[in-house]
Amino acid sequence: MEFCGTHILSVKQFERSDVDRVFEVADNMAPYARRERITKVLEGAILGNMFFEPSTRTRVSFGCAFNLLGGQVRETSDVKTSSISKGESLYDTARVISGYSDIIVMRHPQMGSVSEFAKASRVPVINGGDGPNEHPSQALLDLYTIKKELLSNDRQIDGMNIAMIGDLKHGRTVHSLSQLLLLYDNITFTLISPIELRMPAGIVSELTAGGHKVIETEDMEAGLNDNDTVYLTRIQEERFTTKLEADIYRGRFRLNQSIYTRYCQPNTIIMHPLPRDSREEANELDNDLNQHPSLAIFRQTDNGVVVRMALFALVLNVADKIDDSATDVGWYTQGRF
Amino acid sequence: MEFCGTHILSVKQFERSDVDRVFEVADNMAPYARRERITKVLEGAILGNMFFEPSTRTRVSFGCAFNLLGGQVRETSDVKTSSISKGESLYDTARVISGYSDIIVMRHPQMGSVSEFAKASRVPVINGGDGPNEHPSQALLDLYTIKKELLSNDRQIDGMNIAMIGDLKHGRTVHSLSQLLLLYDNITFTLISPIELRMPAGIVSELTAGGHKVIETEDMEAGLNDNDTVYLTRIQEERFTTKLEADIYRGRFRLNQSIYTRYCQPNTIIMHPLPRDSREEANELDNDLNQHPSLAIFRQTDNGVVVRMALFALVLNVADKIDDSATDVGWYTQGRF
Amino acid sequence: MEFCGTHILSVKQFERSDVDRVFEVADNMAPYARRERITKVLEGAILGNMFFEPSTRTRVSFGCAFNLLGGQVRETSDVKTSSISKGESLYDTARVISGYSDIIVMRHPQMGSVSEFAKASRVPVINGGDGPNEHPSQALLDLYTIKKELLSNDRQIDGMNIAMIGDLKHGRTVHSLSQLLLLYDNITFTLISPIELRMPAGIVSELTAGGHKVIETEDMEAGLNDNDTVYLTRIQEERFTTKLEADIYRGRFRLNQSIYTRYCQPNTIIMHPLPRDSREEANELDNDLNQHPSLAIFRQTDNGVVVRMALFALVLNVADKIDDSATDVGWYTQGRF
Repeated sequence: MEFCGTHILSVKQFERSDVDRVFEVADNMAPYARRERITKVLEGAILGNMFFEPSTRTRVSFGCAFNLLGGQVRETSDVKTSSISKGESLYDTARVISGYSDIIVMRHPQMGSVSEFAKASRVPVINGGDGPNEHPSQALLDLYTIKKELLSNDRQIDGMNIAMIGDLKHGRTVHSLSQLLLLYDNITFTLISPIELRMPAGIVSELTAGGHKVIETEDMEAGLNDNDTVYLTRIQEERFTTKLEADIYRGRFRLNQSIYTRYCQPNTIIMHPLPRDSREEANELDNDLNQHPSLAIFRQTDNGVVVRMALFALVLNVADKIDDSATDVGWYTQGRF
Repeated sequence: MEFCGTHILSVKQFERSDVDRVFEVADNMAPYARRERITKVLEGAILGNMFFEPSTRTRVSFGCAFNLLGGQVRETSDVKTSSISKGESLYDTARVISGYSDIIVMRHPQMGSVSEFAKASRVPVINGGDGPNEHPSQALLDLYTIKKELLSNDRQIDGMNIAMIGDLKHGRTVHSLSQLLLLYDNITFTLISPIELRMPAGIVSELTAGGHKVIETEDMEAGLNDNDTVYLTRIQEERFTTKLEADIYRGRFRLNQSIYTRYCQPNTIIMHPLPRDSREEANELDNDLNQHPSLAIFRQTDNGVVVRMALFALVLNVADKIDDSATDVGWYTQGRF
Repeated sequence: MEFCGTHILSVKQFERSDVDRVFEVADNMAPYARRERITKVLEGAILGNMFFEPSTRTRVSFGCAFNLLGGQVRETSDVKTSSISKGESLYDTARVISGYSDIIVMRHPQMGSVSEFAKASRVPVINGGDGPNEHPSQALLDLYTIKKELLSNDRQIDGMNIAMIGDLKHGRTVHSLSQLLLLYDNITFTLISPIELRMPAGIVSELTAGGHKVIETEDMEAGLNDNDTVYLTRIQEERFTTKLEADIYRGRFRLNQSIYTRYCQPNTIIMHPLPRDSREEANELDNDLNQHPSLAIFRQTDNGVVVRMALFALVLNVADKIDDSATDVGWYTQGRF
């Protein structure tokens, strides 16, 4: 696709070559994200970082990515303080806010809201999550992480085995990641979840129609066997009608050191979209794995920065100019990675 | 007036020549707001963007305007997280915050609060709205819009006809705009509102004393006839005692495509301070006019950016240096306007 | 201590020579804080300004200090919008957020939370207040203020007399300031408080063991006599079980013009960590002293900016490079100090 000026709303926009392009640019961003160099390629540009649903992590990650390219960030983090609470339409919000910024990241609790917003926007919009629907930059950073982690073991995405574990019904991240993996060949998906929280049938059909193998199971121990990657998810409490309903499932599938050692192949990459729920009753991914070299969860969030930098750079058409204004960093940056 | 170092608290500070000066500087800001060029004239300066009452739009507009001049923005968007909730006086808040920034924009729900704050501030303060009282940058952007829209039809403010419609009692924007229009000659004001929500008598008197013609009516259809500009407003629910009381008036005066076509002169400019209430029960300005070339509401908010840039530049005395540090923009900026 | 790359978590980290170094760097920051010059020494650097407890003043002060060094600020001001509310551990929050920024300031309501966070962080962390426990930059700015105020009267910290007044039990600032004063010699502390809100016995023991003289009293008028500095504090309502309990003590010890004149030595420095509670029922430091030349409370908050600039510069190892990129300021900056 032509990235320049395009809205990034859904993983379904991406061809495999598009993903390759994003990852190539993301690779180039690494020295900037690691504070080895600084660039001012977007000096003077403004990101409208519009979060109409709370999300410190994603909001700060996008904002940081834009700052690292030299740009400024104006933002909101709360729907209650916005005109939307006075009956303003998404159309109006988009017309107005797009007059203030060069590019907009928008998160909103309603499915489809970001696409509707983008239609009225006069500048490119990146979907930062529209409720249970899409969160394309998360899917891209997940896939980028898988690719890099596999590469460091001389493996690749084509032909890999991946287990997805937990609330596969509501887990937006596993839906979007599955969509992206459709672009690759011959993957084995082991989908481990309570039967009530299974991966939506539509996605399973797409995967099998795409030539991939899908195993659905409630037996975690059997399912963990023979994977390159295990991708755990949190019970998405906010998508359930009541907290009580969510509590039924919380803590049913847990990965910890002893389970990993017993059931997983060595070097199986451990992923999680974060936040993980570390309360005792949940604890889907135990802290006793925190020092494990295959735990990739914080490399995932680090990769989020470079992937978001890449999206900004591609959409604003500066991907090939990053290095032009680059200079060295003069402050303390040790111990970061 | 001497802009340099002055607080901008009220439209009453402005002579006609002052308005002309703001608009002249605002005109110069257009290439920067349109991202044709960038300037660093305020590089190193800090705006304290203090919103002690929610307003995403106005907050982001001011912040963006300051960024476009090269400055940084520190801000707050919530009174609950502030020391004011621990019993701090406005005097103290002002003494402290003015030590952190080069200029302050302040919004606060209480009438007179921003003036009180400004008295204690050690840096210039711009009133971003003090409850039902003043919001001078809004009045200036409204007037700037009227001027530009009329100009593009070879008309001018002197001698024009304007209809103001809706909650004229609580509508701060129509009060302030009326004050500014006092600086011009021979205007006909048609004030269309429920009788209980009429324009305050004091303002009507000032207008007539200033040689303007004022017609007050509840008959929207008659009132719409023969205007250069119609200015619609939202029922200011937050200024009523109860939501129920506001509901009585909501939706009483509505402008849509068919009413516009039937009752307005061709090319009548349609304005609204935004947010407009697009819920079915209100809908004072219908979406079926969204594509109408005379709908100026989003040009209004765009104009807000250049007018605010002009105020910052004048108060901080850099209006004549904007172009000195200007450079071209290197990223994608198509399709914005 | 070696400042470069160090977490600043507690005043207990500081030797007297460290304090001297911070103050020396803070002195160098004055021209930048006064907007006589600007520096870009941290251009490209990002501060993660993480406030998981409301504090407009401290948050803006840190953010402003970082901007004044040329850096960018990403921030959060609300724990409710954070992953911590979804059960995320401080370990995870720290691993993630430290991938986004070059240095982090963190405030959190729980004692010990910032140290725990710092252990997992990959970048230096400055404690912006961990509940009733520590707030080292406040203690440093208080001490810096005392030093500068005394100096302007040819006095010094060694051998001075200081009265601390109010809620000495919960007042984090007086605890931390006392800790820092332990580094000096021969100070007389007069601790004036309700008997139930006395300075913790452990701190009093440390002071006397350190060779200082401590007088504890409920008699404010006697206690005010013969001090170089009086340091007033607010009743820390948020640390009491109920507001009612706090109300018992509110307003018991008040300083105003007439009490100052009657009981204090001339030139006694008046300090307060702010916010002061100016509601009639509290009013621990009366507004009738606002114009008094010995009232140092706003010089305190101004000093907060340079002290925080100094901490950033030392931890990020740029203290000696500040002037390299310095340029003059081109906008209106009169009347600030």
